[in-house]
Amino acid sequence: MPTIIVEGPKLDIEKKRELVKEIYEIASKIYGIEHIVIIIKENSPENVGINGKLLIDREKNLE
Amino acid sequence: MPTIIVEGPKLDIEKKRELVKEIYEIASKIYGIEHIVIIIKENSPENVGINGKLLIDREKNLE
Amino acid sequence: MPTIIVEGPKLDIEKKRELVKEIYEIASKIYGIEHIVIIIKENSPENVGINGKLLIDREKNLE
Amino acid sequence: MPTIIVEGPKLDIEKKRELVKEIYEIASKIYGIEHIVIIIKENSPENVGINGKLLIDREKNLE
Amino acid sequence: MPTIIVEGPKLDIEKKRELVKEIYEIASKIYGIEHIVIIIKENSPENVGINGKLLIDREKNLE
Amino acid sequence: MPTIIVEGPKLDIEKKRELVKEIYEIASKIYGIEHIVIIIKENSPENVGINGKLLIDREKNLE
Repeated sequence: MPTIIVEGPKLDIEKKRELVKEIYEIASKIYGIEHIVIIIKENSPENVGINGKLLIDREKNLE
Repeated sequence: MPTIIVEGPKLDIEKKRELVKEIYEIASKIYGIEHIVIIIKENSPENVGINGKLLIDREKNLE
Repeated sequence: MPTIIVEGPKLDIEKKRELVKEIYEIASKIYGIEHIVIIIKENSPENVGINGKLLIDREKNLE
Repeated sequence: MPTIIVEGPKLDIEKKRELVKEIYEIASKIYGIEHIVIIIKENSPENVGINGKLLIDREKNLE
Repeated sequence: MPTIIVEGPKLDIEKKRELVKEIYEIASKIYGIEHIVIIIKENSPENVGINGKLLIDREKNLE
Repeated sequence: MPTIIVEGPKLDIEKKRELVKEIYEIASKIYGIEHIVIIIKENSPENVGINGKLLIDREKNLE
């Protein structure tokens, strides 16, 4: 412990490396704990609703 | 906030639209908050256990 | 299954009844499943950050 | 209820059967409840960070 | 990793010890991993809805 | 979206401010998204098991 679950859109591997490295440094400093697990959840825009509309539909309206 | 995570089986996109729209309307009314995120998690029957049996095995017994 | 986790602020019991009843009706209709669990998580404004600021601090600025 | 979410690496179906069966037996005994849902989440090593490094990178260093 | 989140009702500490010990033994055996975190979430019956009704109301009907 | 859930031990409010501020800055930079929710979950050592033992018992052994 601690375990940090990041629910977000798709990310490329370089960004995943950066996200995990930097969030770890902060969490480890603030909690004063060495062992921290970070789980990245990549959600498709078809599975995320914001203010009642699927992200995939909101993005289409912006095209 | 609020964030609503819906753990369920696979859904087609029309049902996702309906689910997100209707759950948003309720949650927004009850919480009195406009910005609400809904995350739909589609779980394969191979990854869900009910009363000790995988859903995929329970469904086979019903065939 | 399905299990729906609602992460939000504190709610009074009447609103919890309404939230659970109405979200259940939608989810049960859309998934076509009778057994659905809804778990309400009440988060204190001290434990929620929005765009980098604790909710408790954002609310103070609005007073 | 209860609902148990297992965040872990990929598992083959035989192990999933075993995991769900055995965790159910314990949880049902201890909670004294019959209806228990277990959801297995299979996370790719690219999406898990341990102590600041992606699992996929940690595993490469061990080769 | 793995991290196991157990969403259930209140438990006394003896049962928590038993739950954590036994679930760990299974998960560690099946995953073949030593470091496993188990997080017990105790939910009040006022915050859990089953088939559209709060657990606290379902329990009253049984008295 | 994104939503980041931080499962950890108790934290004082100053540390919560720091955690939310710094994790937001990273996540916002990496995802390129402005609206990000962070939810801090404070777990009592009685509710966290590490390698089969409750944290509260592991801590007693260290005294």
